Amino acid sequence: VVVAASGCDLHLDLAGRRVRAGLEAALREAVQSGRLAAGTRLPATRVLAADLGVGRGTVAEVYAQLIGEGWLTSRQGSGTQVATTEAALPVPGPRHGSPLPDGRRLRYNLLAGHRDLSAFPRAGWLAAARKALAAAPSQALGYGDPRGRGELRVALAAYLSRARGVRASPDQIVVCTGSTQGLALVSQVLRDRGLATVGVEEYSHPVLVRAVTSSGLSLLTLSVDESGAAVGSASDAGAMLLTPAHQFPLGPALSPARRAEAARWAAHTGGLIIEDDYDGEFRYDRRPVGALQALAPEHVIYVGTASKALAPGLRLGWLVLPEPMVEAVAEAKACADLHTGSFEQLTLAEFIRSGAYDRHIRRSRLVYRARRDQLVAAFARHAPGIPITGIAAGFHAVATLPPGEDEHEAVGRAAASDVAVEGLGTYAIDHHSRGPALVIGYAAATDHAYITALARLGEAITSRPAGSASRARTAPN
Amino acid sequence: VVVAASGCDLHLDLAGRRVRAGLEAALREAVQSGRLAAGTRLPATRVLAADLGVGRGTVAEVYAQLIGEGWLTSRQGSGTQVATTEAALPVPGPRHGSPLPDGRRLRYNLLAGHRDLSAFPRAGWLAAARKALAAAPSQALGYGDPRGRGELRVALAAYLSRARGVRASPDQIVVCTGSTQGLALVSQVLRDRGLATVGVEEYSHPVLVRAVTSSGLSLLTLSVDESGAAVGSASDAGAMLLTPAHQFPLGPALSPARRAEAARWAAHTGGLIIEDDYDGEFRYDRRPVGALQALAPEHVIYVGTASKALAPGLRLGWLVLPEPMVEAVAEAKACADLHTGSFEQLTLAEFIRSGAYDRHIRRSRLVYRARRDQLVAAFARHAPGIPITGIAAGFHAVATLPPGEDEHEAVGRAAASDVAVEGLGTYAIDHHSRGPALVIGYAAATDHAYITALARLGEAITSRPAGSASRARTAPN
Repeated sequence: VVVAASGCDLHLDLAGRRVRAGLEAALREAVQSGRLAAGTRLPATRVLAADLGVGRGTVAEVYAQLIGEGWLTSRQGSGTQVATTEAALPVPGPRHGSPLPDGRRLRYNLLAGHRDLSAFPRAGWLAAARKALAAAPSQALGYGDPRGRGELRVALAAYLSRARGVRASPDQIVVCTGSTQGLALVSQVLRDRGLATVGVEEYSHPVLVRAVTSSGLSLLTLSVDESGAAVGSASDAGAMLLTPAHQFPLGPALSPARRAEAARWAAHTGGLIIEDDYDGEFRYDRRPVGALQALAPEHVIYVGTASKALAPGLRLGWLVLPEPMVEAVAEAKACADLHTGSFEQLTLAEFIRSGAYDRHIRRSRLVYRARRDQLVAAFARHAPGIPITGIAAGFHAVATLPPGEDEHEAVGRAAASDVAVEGLGTYAIDHHSRGPALVIGYAAATDHAYITALARLGEAITSRPAGSASRARTAPN
Repeated sequence: VVVAASGCDLHLDLAGRRVRAGLEAALREAVQSGRLAAGTRLPATRVLAADLGVGRGTVAEVYAQLIGEGWLTSRQGSGTQVATTEAALPVPGPRHGSPLPDGRRLRYNLLAGHRDLSAFPRAGWLAAARKALAAAPSQALGYGDPRGRGELRVALAAYLSRARGVRASPDQIVVCTGSTQGLALVSQVLRDRGLATVGVEEYSHPVLVRAVTSSGLSLLTLSVDESGAAVGSASDAGAMLLTPAHQFPLGPALSPARRAEAARWAAHTGGLIIEDDYDGEFRYDRRPVGALQALAPEHVIYVGTASKALAPGLRLGWLVLPEPMVEAVAEAKACADLHTGSFEQLTLAEFIRSGAYDRHIRRSRLVYRARRDQLVAAFARHAPGIPITGIAAGFHAVATLPPGEDEHEAVGRAAASDVAVEGLGTYAIDHHSRGPALVIGYAAATDHAYITALARLGEAITSRPAGSASRARTAPN
């Protein structure tokens, strides 16, 4: 049965004799699947009843039922419509990513922190879920340890030791609903212990900074150079939040001298280092830079995540805590939500244990290294004067624009070429003290769009402002 | 290969030529699977090397590696041991449950809020997970709406309308990591809006009360009678937390008159009602008592959970919010952890959509109703003088002890009969103002243990204190 609804056809399969139930189910399914988009106006009951050859009362009953269930809405004067299920709410910037510059969806996505998730190992994840759920005792379905499942903490301790050099016993690990929650809980505990100020890198991710400040802590910004954060300037802070493996977003690794300096600072002042190891596994040209945590396990809170290696939607992260902090953080976790969902934890434990996690990371590393190389090659070709830095690891790089260039204008020219990219200023905590630059994420575009995205971006940022739109239209496709 | 380790045999399969890797993997597996229990002392390197016919250096390297990974620990003087992975941390009382009275694991579990989870529909859940993950767009694996997945909010709006009479559009729903998180987030938002005091029922669950007070809100206790909470005495509070369908733990439903009174209070004072609908679907003798929310949707925050119908380990709960609160609560959720894991949400959406959720609830309701009837019958037989109340719904009932009886002693006599049960005083917020009573959970024991548990409890609480131990030993088994 095909019914025209305000010019849009309703393809409804009405099988069987029970017309009312059939119509109800068909409409529900059409809305849920998105075939009937939010806001779509449905035919008047009289019209639909005539089209279907059923009583008008039947249609009215079905509409009323679906309005009650929230699928449809009815407003005086505008008839019956498909309910809006995704109203525009201010969605927070994702961790290590950010909303599109102008809120529009551009065709080519070069935003840091965004990912093309089509490579997520769905079959492997499901196989791990099946195995984990089959093996789990009934007690694993009940309330559990606020630190998370023992199986996952054991697997993580082994993995982090092996892959990141972290010194961790399972007892020191607290599994969180993403690393953002981990950082928020740590910030609460530090504030409750009287800490006032946290040092943060002068360019950092706003979502992380919010996790720190929302608990009432103040910030002290640390400058960043080619050796990483200037950890020596944190003396007035009680803790500092660092990205030692790959400074976000500028890119340098924290140098051995700075690491030693940070460890000395912590030992002498009793200060704490929060190590955000957000992309530590993804280093391309030499062995991974090990975790700072191993230098000073009593003073470092290590923060890790499955968002980079697997998918942000999993919302799985972890803390490795100095032993004296474990109980307080576990209590904060219990107050917040008792514990993170057990099934996902058991699945990840099995996924790590089976070796699938390592295999997936190895595969992904090759993919992203090739993307990194393509970025460098594309800029050498399309924008030869623009240096690309921060390329040793991760999923993003920094393109330094010529002095005097306007960052906002460059982002605008890219957008005019249908390319979403961000200015470095997006990540400035206090003020944007450096020259103009772009942060280019190379993990977000799909394979077939990536090369075109790079070419368009290179041309857009080297073109003169006035000519950008016309040149973009002639970019190779 | 079988190796004796301090009198306990190590069954290690050492296949293949790569002895070191094989030994490492075999030991890791033995620890992880629990075959080598925490604290087990391993053979000295010299002994194990001789047993296996390998070099002592190889064994030492394997031990060092596994110590580094956290599987083993080494302490001077006590050699190498299997690491303790589940150190005794103060685990918080679960929602609507509580730890065993004396921390020991007793054989017969009659604790409220504990559940025999062997009936969890594992196959159905996995099938839903498979279907949901196969259907999910890649974008569903990324960062999402802080309110939760649209698919789940649509499914919940329909379900709650149908099953609980809740007036909900998907836009008003915020999916949380369990209802405890939902209540904690709501409490934060109310405090930030200047609210100072929340009315709570004089007997309530301590975990819920902690979720309210940990945000800095004060409590005002509301007395409870056979019509439910005395909502009229909340005038000085800006909000009240109620369990209208089945007061926890005393059992009455909030009467129609009290519901109307609460709605009037909210409308006149601008106060808010937080409706904890923790077991609303489990009513046995007549139609479910609908949600209070439908009476005053602009003034009621509805709190629901999958912990009762499915399993607490899922950590899935939801809020239905008055429209003006949605944005603030979504922001609080984003600050806390961005959003709840998407895979579990998609799975639950599919589980509801397919009808499996309703079928599981219908099945469970029959099981628990039969248990409820067995409880009443067992007390009529074994403890005829003890009235059982609060039995119209849910998973627990209240047994009123004779005046002058000591609640603690009765709990102790039950424990001496290997039965875990709690006194009503466990749930008193201010002071235990009622006569002695026990809160009996009838969902926790396994099928084969349940009847025995009831008989033992009935005998234990009617026996004289001095004779309780000997009578318990002769209880039917």
